[in-house]
Amino acid sequence: MKKIVSIVILSLLLVACGKTEIASLNTVSNIEELNTAIKDAKPGDNIVLANGTYKDFEIKFTGEGTEDKPITLKAETAGKVFIEGESSLEISGDYLEVSGLFFRNGHSPKTNVIAFRTSAKDVANYSKVTNCVILDFNNLERDQDNLWVQFYGKHNELSNCYIAGKTNGGPTVRVDLKGNQSIRNFHKIVNNHFGPRPRKGGARGETIQLGSSFTSMSPSNTTIANNLFEECNGEVEIISSKTNFNIIKNNVFYKSEGSVVTRHGNYVTVDGNYFIGDGVNDQYGGIRIINTGHWVINNLFYKIKGKNFRSPIAIMNGIPKSPLNRYNQVTDVVVAYNTFVDSDSPWQFGVGTNIAQADVLPKSEIRSARPLRTEVVNNVIYNSVGDANPIIEHDKADGVTFKSNIIYNNGVKIENSHGLISKELTLTDIGTDLSVPTSGYDDVEIYNGFDFKTITEDLLGNSRSKSNQIGAIVNSGSVNLDLLDKSKYGTDWYSNVVGAKDPTTYTVANTSELVAKLKAAESGDIIALTDGVFNISESLVVDKTITIQSKGNSEIIFEGAANTPAFSLNPYGKLTLKNIKLKGNGSNYAFASLKENMSNHFGLEVVDSEISNFNYALRVYKQAYSEEITFKNTAISNCENGIELSEETNDRGDYNTEYLTINNCNFDNVKQNVVDYYRGGYDESTIGGNLLITNSTFTNCGAKEKNKRLLNHNGIVNVNINNNTFKNNNVKFVSILWGAKNNVESENTVTNSGQIKTEENLVMTLMY
Amino acid sequence: MKKIVSIVILSLLLVACGKTEIASLNTVSNIEELNTAIKDAKPGDNIVLANGTYKDFEIKFTGEGTEDKPITLKAETAGKVFIEGESSLEISGDYLEVSGLFFRNGHSPKTNVIAFRTSAKDVANYSKVTNCVILDFNNLERDQDNLWVQFYGKHNELSNCYIAGKTNGGPTVRVDLKGNQSIRNFHKIVNNHFGPRPRKGGARGETIQLGSSFTSMSPSNTTIANNLFEECNGEVEIISSKTNFNIIKNNVFYKSEGSVVTRHGNYVTVDGNYFIGDGVNDQYGGIRIINTGHWVINNLFYKIKGKNFRSPIAIMNGIPKSPLNRYNQVTDVVVAYNTFVDSDSPWQFGVGTNIAQADVLPKSEIRSARPLRTEVVNNVIYNSVGDANPIIEHDKADGVTFKSNIIYNNGVKIENSHGLISKELTLTDIGTDLSVPTSGYDDVEIYNGFDFKTITEDLLGNSRSKSNQIGAIVNSGSVNLDLLDKSKYGTDWYSNVVGAKDPTTYTVANTSELVAKLKAAESGDIIALTDGVFNISESLVVDKTITIQSKGNSEIIFEGAANTPAFSLNPYGKLTLKNIKLKGNGSNYAFASLKENMSNHFGLEVVDSEISNFNYALRVYKQAYSEEITFKNTAISNCENGIELSEETNDRGDYNTEYLTINNCNFDNVKQNVVDYYRGGYDESTIGGNLLITNSTFTNCGAKEKNKRLLNHNGIVNVNINNNTFKNNNVKFVSILWGAKNNVESENTVTNSGQIKTEENLVMTLMY
Repeated sequence: MKKIVSIVILSLLLVACGKTEIASLNTVSNIEELNTAIKDAKPGDNIVLANGTYKDFEIKFTGEGTEDKPITLKAETAGKVFIEGESSLEISGDYLEVSGLFFRNGHSPKTNVIAFRTSAKDVANYSKVTNCVILDFNNLERDQDNLWVQFYGKHNELSNCYIAGKTNGGPTVRVDLKGNQSIRNFHKIVNNHFGPRPRKGGARGETIQLGSSFTSMSPSNTTIANNLFEECNGEVEIISSKTNFNIIKNNVFYKSEGSVVTRHGNYVTVDGNYFIGDGVNDQYGGIRIINTGHWVINNLFYKIKGKNFRSPIAIMNGIPKSPLNRYNQVTDVVVAYNTFVDSDSPWQFGVGTNIAQADVLPKSEIRSARPLRTEVVNNVIYNSVGDANPIIEHDKADGVTFKSNIIYNNGVKIENSHGLISKELTLTDIGTDLSVPTSGYDDVEIYNGFDFKTITEDLLGNSRSKSNQIGAIVNSGSVNLDLLDKSKYGTDWYSNVVGAKDPTTYTVANTSELVAKLKAAESGDIIALTDGVFNISESLVVDKTITIQSKGNSEIIFEGAANTPAFSLNPYGKLTLKNIKLKGNGSNYAFASLKENMSNHFGLEVVDSEISNFNYALRVYKQAYSEEITFKNTAISNCENGIELSEETNDRGDYNTEYLTINNCNFDNVKQNVVDYYRGGYDESTIGGNLLITNSTFTNCGAKEKNKRLLNHNGIVNVNINNNTFKNNNVKFVSILWGAKNNVESENTVTNSGQIKTEENLVMTLMY
Repeated sequence: MKKIVSIVILSLLLVACGKTEIASLNTVSNIEELNTAIKDAKPGDNIVLANGTYKDFEIKFTGEGTEDKPITLKAETAGKVFIEGESSLEISGDYLEVSGLFFRNGHSPKTNVIAFRTSAKDVANYSKVTNCVILDFNNLERDQDNLWVQFYGKHNELSNCYIAGKTNGGPTVRVDLKGNQSIRNFHKIVNNHFGPRPRKGGARGETIQLGSSFTSMSPSNTTIANNLFEECNGEVEIISSKTNFNIIKNNVFYKSEGSVVTRHGNYVTVDGNYFIGDGVNDQYGGIRIINTGHWVINNLFYKIKGKNFRSPIAIMNGIPKSPLNRYNQVTDVVVAYNTFVDSDSPWQFGVGTNIAQADVLPKSEIRSARPLRTEVVNNVIYNSVGDANPIIEHDKADGVTFKSNIIYNNGVKIENSHGLISKELTLTDIGTDLSVPTSGYDDVEIYNGFDFKTITEDLLGNSRSKSNQIGAIVNSGSVNLDLLDKSKYGTDWYSNVVGAKDPTTYTVANTSELVAKLKAAESGDIIALTDGVFNISESLVVDKTITIQSKGNSEIIFEGAANTPAFSLNPYGKLTLKNIKLKGNGSNYAFASLKENMSNHFGLEVVDSEISNFNYALRVYKQAYSEEITFKNTAISNCENGIELSEETNDRGDYNTEYLTINNCNFDNVKQNVVDYYRGGYDESTIGGNLLITNSTFTNCGAKEKNKRLLNHNGIVNVNINNNTFKNNNVKFVSILWGAKNNVESENTVTNSGQIKTEENLVMTLMY
């Protein structure tokens, strides 16, 4: 169907205005029409993509617009044009604009979903993508990295978009600097809403990456401003700046488990941003600083509890004469006019020092170069609950100048204060759930560092020229911010706010009802089993959030084929199993992910249940991932294998779950892989996974374990084995803990089960 | 004596002009007056240093001038104010100008002669040193490094100065980037005459260094323009650019044994410079490129014979993920619109590749990363004598785009042409001793690379907007350059042009005449000995260029004390000894440098002579250096030690002479240190020293040599042992050659003297 509508009125109007160019408005509805329209497009032309769903739609938008007359490619109605299947958008030329598209239910067949180029030589300039959504547009496999938006060329813009749900490897957005056509690019990433990016389980989960170490000498001059980053939990870096002269300004980082990191490159300005935590979650971070010449000014840190790498201000140690892709020394950095409210130990220096590991790491990995010529000045700290250690020196901060910093510490004495000036301060409400100190210290002399005259405004944009004062906010009357009003960010048509929905509970009395209701239920619903036995012969597919529970006398007997699971955990499948007895035939599995095409995360929580007679209690395949896996008050018995999470062996720092929690469980006669949880590849900045085993009993387990360890958690960074009983397990070690990392054990009773050992340094594959 | 003259006329004039400020002109003649004048100086004031000699004069010039009213410190008459002894100049503040001073006969007690700061915090901005001379202002010891001009702060200038003769370690001029107060400095080094800097013998002999590897990420934006570099032979780097965004433009590099090197840092523009050689000396270099984003455009290379590191365009291999202080990969470099006339193999790629040395060097030293995304386009090569290999690939140039390059090769077939277009070209005279092709290729399509529109002018400043063409010069009518008219560079009062002077010959008939005339003679004179014996009891001091000769029947018998030399080679002492029999008493020396305070180089040439009966024929102490040492047609016999040049053991790549030449000599019964010439410290870019031993005979030598080697030349890069006879020398090796470097031997006859061995790789101390 051809449906090209030329709007003559527009040309008439133009003629009426004394102009002679005729701009056309073409509505197209398939790829051929689109390509023709693109081919014919002249400056000022508007190509309209008719409302509808476009499957396997690879757009190459090329053209030469002008500053006054861009060529546009728009959805007929913003948000009503769905790009699905194997689809992508590539743009090259000048002054091109794309708006209103919704990328969903699919993935890109290329390395990018949206690329600002159509070939290595043909890049876009002065072009933008605006008012679009990319949602869950993931590759089928987690290890198959890609990018959702890749910038090339110069002066391009990503604005007012909503982008969320990337689970596969690779930053969500990246700016590419390879080639002179892409340096000094002055790209703008503004007014977007970066919605939740789930924990990825390892590196390569940044939300925005500016360049790479290989282009870390290049001037980028990219601006990231006025965006909302909401639950961007992909990895430790939300924004990874790897080039020079970038500006990160006035963004809101809300409950995001990571930091803004000046990973490579230099002279980045991080100005006037809000880092907002909840006062509890210690994964929410602030700004981590590496390299030279960064200015960190006017930022507000609110209830940020991140530690060490994720502390509000983390200034790292460098590697002397560092290799290009590792850690340059911090020099000539300015941290000024920031305010910290109820954020623990907000200033940490020498972060990442690893001098103690000199024996197991090559010299080129030892971070011993402390910051030089760095100023931490004119900052305000407010602690409702006093903090004895607002400043932590992992290594000496002897190259740092501290001046004119003040603190309210609720009377708690400060160790190692570096001249912090104590003041009685109070909080002033400045908006929804946000109160900060804004006065009470105008008598403190402002430190006037080199070029500080360029800091002309405060966090709120108020002038600092008159009555300047320290801290992020100049005292300037009443303020009423609503930072989390999501209508201020992203598109004008999409919202990720979902209304609360009460779950529906389906009571099922037999297997066929169970199968039918499991299919019919919506995400979040509950399936309640009546008392009795449910014989299942084929795997139950879990592809949404679902709870399956009983009153305590329900039994599911799985009679399915060998090596198939009772519950097949599909993408998006988040299962809670409560109060169920689950029995196998000895050769099949209780729970398993798909072997492939795990294009999104699954989840598993097993409570008050009994799992017995399986080949595997849980088998998670290589590229499958769950943010959390929990077994609680549950017995696992008479299984050949227990909880198997060791197939992600790419040794790139990835692993199969972020949190594995085993609490008050009873393992009996599980012969091998009792708990097998693996992460490979040395990477100092990966902070997971997390293994908690507590209040549990292991008896007669591990007899067939080849390495003679009952609990295998090689490379997992956080391990806590507490208050368990290990009895009559025929192994040599209950566990070998990694002393240099956060691996601990306490109050365990070990009887006839070998020992728990700690090795300080683990010899691992270097990822670099 | 106080001599402050207030010039009221000036103020009257100002008043007459309706201005009310009074600028004063104070003439001062000692440090107290100067300091008072400086202390009292207001914008517009002129402080005048009265003509005369100022010894041990440490000037601290501080003040706050303005753009319209700088504060000046001037010589009463430019060139008549001599700063001598232990003296220095430090400047801090704004808009300060120093002019007309002559630094000579001394050295600085500080680390700089001129520094644009007075303390670590107090730097100069918008200030300049102009119309001054620094001549031979060397530290007393060669290993005592310093700088003659050190830039700090911003917007400072060194202009119209003459600077020459630095022999001690350290670049002549350096720009310091440590600290935010010194970045984006926009300093100017313009219109200067950098006169001869002698070969230093090792590294740390640059004429200008812009930053260091530790600040190689910083934007410098320094301009070096319109300077004459004449015989700047200090080391392989004339200009070592180690920061970003520098501009090196319209300079003349004349007979300078080195290159412009983008050693660290990126995005440097090398535009419109002249590299002029003599068609013979293969030490004169061009531009050596490391790192990212440099533009090398509009340059002319004329009769440059440098090879490899010194080739006209040397594009190096980098080290993958290089350490900060080593070699980053070349990426995104543009080499366009340059012209090469009679310059051998002007384009060399993969320079410095050392994959073959992977066994003896650590991985972090292996230069295996070839250039990427680099364009070599729109260049012209003219060879009067055809060159079969204009392009040399030490490693593959597979990351380089070659387009629109043309060559005239006088009919010689080209190997490996990478698309070079052959043309019949002729040379056009464009000035004194300079002729280049300027036409005959306007039919060749110009390659239009990214941003090439910014190349708006050619070498001569002619517009490229109309009738553009490839090569450095747009064909634009007759041109008459006089690049070597030295009046265009440096001061308006000093010239290094010296008139030719005929040497005076003094004939002396006895020892006292010899002693007297040696003292009285001027540099360049000749002392002729009559036939007969000259008994000398105290060392003859050589502190100028002098020739001592005879008709063949003169004998000098040195009866001086043990371990004292017949000829004491002092700074500046360059001795030619011709046709003399020189005998010692077995315990004293024939020739020796001073043990300390060798503040300038010496020289030694011994021809047609006989040296016998000494403890040492030649002993050169640790910090002494001669550019050349030559023994020709000379016998050295019955000495405990021969030629000793192995005391420079700092292992920083330094050595005691650049060229040691032994031709047609006869060594007999020299017991140890027969030839001992040492260079320590691994450094790929040190190209010396040079040992040539040819047509000579060694008999009964080396008996006491502890390491059982007759010829010791550990670490010397160029060794040629050719056509000699070695007979009955009780050693194990005549020589051990360093195969990986340029060590060769040929046509030697070795009888009962061990062997000559080649070791491919020498294990050396890494300097980094």
